[in-house]
Amino acid sequence: MPPFGMHVKFTAQSGKRDTLLELLLEAASAMESVPECRLYFVNVTDTEPDTIWVTEVWNDEAAHQASLADEATKAAIQQAMPLIAGVEAIRYRPVGGKGL
Amino acid sequence: MPPFGMHVKFTAQSGKRDTLLELLLEAASAMESVPECRLYFVNVTDTEPDTIWVTEVWNDEAAHQASLADEATKAAIQQAMPLIAGVEAIRYRPVGGKGL
Repeated sequence: MPPFGMHVKFTAQSGKRDTLLELLLEAASAMESVPECRLYFVNVTDTEPDTIWVTEVWNDEAAHQASLADEATKAAIQQAMPLIAGVEAIRYRPVGGKGL
Repeated sequence: MPPFGMHVKFTAQSGKRDTLLELLLEAASAMESVPECRLYFVNVTDTEPDTIWVTEVWNDEAAHQASLADEATKAAIQQAMPLIAGVEAIRYRPVGGKGL
């Protein structure tokens, strides 16, 4: 399977962005021990104060799916849900480049 | 200055995506020798056949601006322009995570 990536746009509930940001940075830290996850970084934007973008690249889509079934991941998602007003994802296939 | 990133969505002229993809992969290779550029990778999507997404992370916005003034970069942009129907950029500030 080819590598798999997503840009995920989280819209936080009003006033909850920084709390959601902490949870997503914890999720990013947990990815350090997941070799199938190549990139997982967390971004904010100055123009949209409730928005957080997460960029993920995985060895393949199956590895990403497997991560969603992990108990720790499921618990983190449960914790984050009340902070989230909306989620949109741009799915893509990384072809090459620096840092993959 | 904080780190700086962009997701850039290129829409290729009809039938020109693969040629544009080659140019962007060459640009990505050139970034291997630019230490201020942390990530520069190139992605396609199966659902939008004319689309290429480039994800870039730089040490700061000034480093990105400086790269645009580089003669080789300017030449590459000139070469790519006739292949491009549209460009949109999502600008962000990376906060942390795996692979930055």
